[in-house]
Amino acid sequence: MNKGERTRQKIIATAAPIFNQRGFAGCSMQEVMEATGLEKGGLYRHFGSKEELAVEAFNFALQQAVKTRTGDLGHIEGALPKLRYLVKRFVETPSPLAGGCPLMNTAVDADDGNPLLRKLAKEGIRDWQHRLMAIVEAGLRKGEIRKGTEPRMVANSIIATLEGALMMSRLEGTRTALEDARMALDGMIERLAMHGTFGH
Amino acid sequence: MNKGERTRQKIIATAAPIFNQRGFAGCSMQEVMEATGLEKGGLYRHFGSKEELAVEAFNFALQQAVKTRTGDLGHIEGALPKLRYLVKRFVETPSPLAGGCPLMNTAVDADDGNPLLRKLAKEGIRDWQHRLMAIVEAGLRKGEIRKGTEPRMVANSIIATLEGALMMSRLEGTRTALEDARMALDGMIERLAMHGTFGH
Repeated sequence: MNKGERTRQKIIATAAPIFNQRGFAGCSMQEVMEATGLEKGGLYRHFGSKEELAVEAFNFALQQAVKTRTGDLGHIEGALPKLRYLVKRFVETPSPLAGGCPLMNTAVDADDGNPLLRKLAKEGIRDWQHRLMAIVEAGLRKGEIRKGTEPRMVANSIIATLEGALMMSRLEGTRTALEDARMALDGMIERLAMHGTFGH
Repeated sequence: MNKGERTRQKIIATAAPIFNQRGFAGCSMQEVMEATGLEKGGLYRHFGSKEELAVEAFNFALQQAVKTRTGDLGHIEGALPKLRYLVKRFVETPSPLAGGCPLMNTAVDADDGNPLLRKLAKEGIRDWQHRLMAIVEAGLRKGEIRKGTEPRMVANSIIATLEGALMMSRLEGTRTALEDARMALDGMIERLAMHGTFGH
C-alpha cells in the first residue's frame, strides 16, 4: 500500500464512525476535514464528492460489523449451532463502530435520502439473509432441520428480531431487549430441529 | 378550539411528516415555514423553538401510529387473540404518516442527537411494552397463558421483531419481511398457551 492509499484508508476509517452516527445529510465534509486534520484540497484529492466518501465509509463500517459479528463461524459444526452462535455473537459483541448498526442507520437515514447508500444497505441486508439461508439450507440437506422449514422466513425473523432489539437496547441503555431477543430466537432455532410448529 | 389553537394544530400536523422523514437535525424551520405557508414571525408566535415544535410533532406522529395500529382492540376477547390482532394490525396497516415508525426514526436519529426526543422515544417504547405486558399478565391470571411465561420477554420480542421487520420491508420495498415476522410471532403466541418451550 503506497502513501496515497494509506491516507485514503485513514480518511475512510476516520469518516466511518462520523457518517454512522450522523447520517449522510447530518455529516459534513468540514467535520471530516477537522477529524482527519486534512485541508479541503487534501480531502478532495482522495474523494471526488461527499457521496463517494460516504459509500466507502459505509462499506468499511459494514465490513467491520460483519467481521465482528460473524466471528470464527467456520469452526462451528452444524446448522443449529451455527445459527445459535451468530445470534449469541450479535447479542454479546458490542458494535465495533460508534453509532450502532450501519445497516439500520443507513436504512432509516436513507429512507427518504441518498439512493446509492439505500441501495448498499439493501444489498447488506440481502447478503445477511443469504448467509443465514445458506446455513438453513445446509441443515435441511443434512437432515438437521426438519422439512417444510422456509429458509427465508428463518433468516428474516432472525435479522428483524436482532435489529429491532438492538434499536431498543441502544435507546433504553440496557442489554435487556437483546437478551430477550436471544432467548426468543434460541427457542425458535431449537424448534427448527424438533417438534415445534415454526415454519408451518 | 380558537383560531390560534387551530393554527397551532395545523402547524403540528404539517410538520409531523417532515420531522418523521428528515429527523430533527435534517428538518429546518424554513421547510416548515414553506409547508405551512407561514412567515417566520407567525411560526415562532406558536412555537418558541424548533425543539418545541419537534416534540409536538413527535407526540402527534406517535399518537397517530398507536391509534392506527391498535385499532379496536377493546372488542377482542382473550389475551392470545389480542396479541395476534396487534401483530396483524402492525403488519397489515400502512404507517399513517410518511416516513415510517416515529419511534424507530427518533430512536435511530436521536441516538447521538436531541436528548429530549430520545427521552420521548424511550417513553414510547416503554408504553408499548407495558400495553403488551398487561395483556400477557391478564392472560396469565386467567389461565390462558401458561405459568412461567415472562411478560417482558414476550413484549420485547414482539416489538423487536415488528420494528426490525418494518425497517427491512421499507428498505426492500416489499412486505415479505413483515409477513415473515407475522408468521414467526403467530407461532410464538400460539406456544404461549400450549406445549412450547418459549419463556423457559
